[in-house]
Amino acid sequence: MKGTAVARANIAFIKYWGNLNDDLRLPMNGSISMTLDRLRTVTTVEFSPALAEDEIEVDGEEPSPAAKARIVAHLDRLRTLAGKPLKAQVVSVNDFPTGVGLASSASGFAALTLAAAAALEMELEDRELSLLARLGSGSATRSIWGGYVEWVAGAKHEDSFASQIAPPEHWEICDCIALVSTEAKEVASSEGHKLAQSSPLYSARLSQVREDLDRVREAILIRDFESLGSVAERETLSLHAIMMTSQPSLLYWTPATVRVMKEVRNWREEGRSVYFTIDAGPNVHLLTLPPYVGEIERALGEVEGVKQVIVCRPGQGARLIEEHLF
Amino acid sequence: MKGTAVARANIAFIKYWGNLNDDLRLPMNGSISMTLDRLRTVTTVEFSPALAEDEIEVDGEEPSPAAKARIVAHLDRLRTLAGKPLKAQVVSVNDFPTGVGLASSASGFAALTLAAAAALEMELEDRELSLLARLGSGSATRSIWGGYVEWVAGAKHEDSFASQIAPPEHWEICDCIALVSTEAKEVASSEGHKLAQSSPLYSARLSQVREDLDRVREAILIRDFESLGSVAERETLSLHAIMMTSQPSLLYWTPATVRVMKEVRNWREEGRSVYFTIDAGPNVHLLTLPPYVGEIERALGEVEGVKQVIVCRPGQGARLIEEHLF
Repeated sequence: MKGTAVARANIAFIKYWGNLNDDLRLPMNGSISMTLDRLRTVTTVEFSPALAEDEIEVDGEEPSPAAKARIVAHLDRLRTLAGKPLKAQVVSVNDFPTGVGLASSASGFAALTLAAAAALEMELEDRELSLLARLGSGSATRSIWGGYVEWVAGAKHEDSFASQIAPPEHWEICDCIALVSTEAKEVASSEGHKLAQSSPLYSARLSQVREDLDRVREAILIRDFESLGSVAERETLSLHAIMMTSQPSLLYWTPATVRVMKEVRNWREEGRSVYFTIDAGPNVHLLTLPPYVGEIERALGEVEGVKQVIVCRPGQGARLIEEHLF
Repeated sequence: MKGTAVARANIAFIKYWGNLNDDLRLPMNGSISMTLDRLRTVTTVEFSPALAEDEIEVDGEEPSPAAKARIVAHLDRLRTLAGKPLKAQVVSVNDFPTGVGLASSASGFAALTLAAAAALEMELEDRELSLLARLGSGSATRSIWGGYVEWVAGAKHEDSFASQIAPPEHWEICDCIALVSTEAKEVASSEGHKLAQSSPLYSARLSQVREDLDRVREAILIRDFESLGSVAERETLSLHAIMMTSQPSLLYWTPATVRVMKEVRNWREEGRSVYFTIDAGPNVHLLTLPPYVGEIERALGEVEGVKQVIVCRPGQGARLIEEHLF
């Protein structure tokens, strides 16, 4: 009763922000993302009658009580569904810094869902895995799939899952991530979602998102990078507009975030095809195409306040692997 | 036929952004501001049959062709109204840097309107001066008055003017201005107003502004600083949300803008009564009360990227003075 899975983070072009139902993590709007080839989580889960309680280790340490409770709640869902009330040992490793807005909960809960389902010998389709991953972390819904992925909002649990728009090899978009902070976020995304509707601008954002989902899906299918990038950049500003005007106000940006945003616009004016998108955190993701990625990576590394640049391309969905972590 | 007037900049708690009618500068929403005691413009206007064309000097230099055309158009309005088609000599001096978002057009067009009207021997009430100043620069409407001022949007020229909510001595709010840039703005406010309606969030902002106008007017009347400050801070984030999500997107903030915003929130958490508001530019206005102004001014001066701190208090409206500039 042991399973190990690898899953990857994803970068959303149209982002998830705000829930119709907090407990079920039913989102107020659909979202579209690209699963990344880097930013991996590997998780081994073993259920055993010999364990008196769940033992959980993430990156070699016991997680915070809040993080542990969230993982245990997710294990509970899966054990209940499988009808096997056994405690588990969970060991999880991220190959990137966690809690800095690099979507570690997406890769983490996608890997946990797949590994635990395998350990419990559940026979689940990708759609069911996507539904279950969502209950752990909204964006994990999308990380079940590789390449270009759409999460349809849905109005109830069974209808809110992701599916693939196109596989990774369809189009090589590069995501140059400018890491400007390695500190934990002041307000976790889970808490932020609850504040979304307190912004007076939130309904207007939702209307716009509905149009933008069609634009981005189409741009991916016909490989129109200018359309994809310009919608993604406007969309992320709309997201941060909601965060800033919610009550209390969330300002995830740092001085370096703004410096990078302005540089992206300068570089674009100079003829490079590059756009930015920013999740619920200070780091900036620069979307570009292969001809520009080398110079963008170099230029980004020289911007004051950028601590590290990680270049990602489209990656595979979550899958089981044979090498267990313990 | 010579007149000299002094007028002052103002800082809006609820800001003007977007026009119902661009030519008439009829705003989409009402606004409320405090006229400042510093940031003065002094302007002398003399009409004379001896002049073949208008001669205009601002801060010792001939203004740019666009700035000059805007001043000449304003002189035209006043000459036509007075029935005196004479050319004018205009000399104007600002005691603060212009074109950096410190509302030099507010003090400038308020002073120009009053000085030119006096030189043309027009007998105008403050309400009429406020209407006329609006045609030169929207926020100049408010700088005609001192203290706390509300500009009612109105649906036609005669209805869109400002009046005083309370005189300067009603309440001593301090505005500590953190000057983080002395460069000219990339996009002038006049151009920015035309983009407002391209933001998908703009209608939602207008609805919110209607509620906030009542809150801010009430907060001024009962001297409730927490209410005034919290609404003003949320309001400015809503304004910049519109700017960022308009097409094209306007990002007036610099890294130092964000650094100051974050410090304001830190200082508030430490118990200081201080809020920020930001006009269409990168500089940050810190609203506070007399007990805190000394330490805020000192702390602000030590923030990286802050080039100068200017402390303002409530000031008088535009008025004629005897000392001509030439």
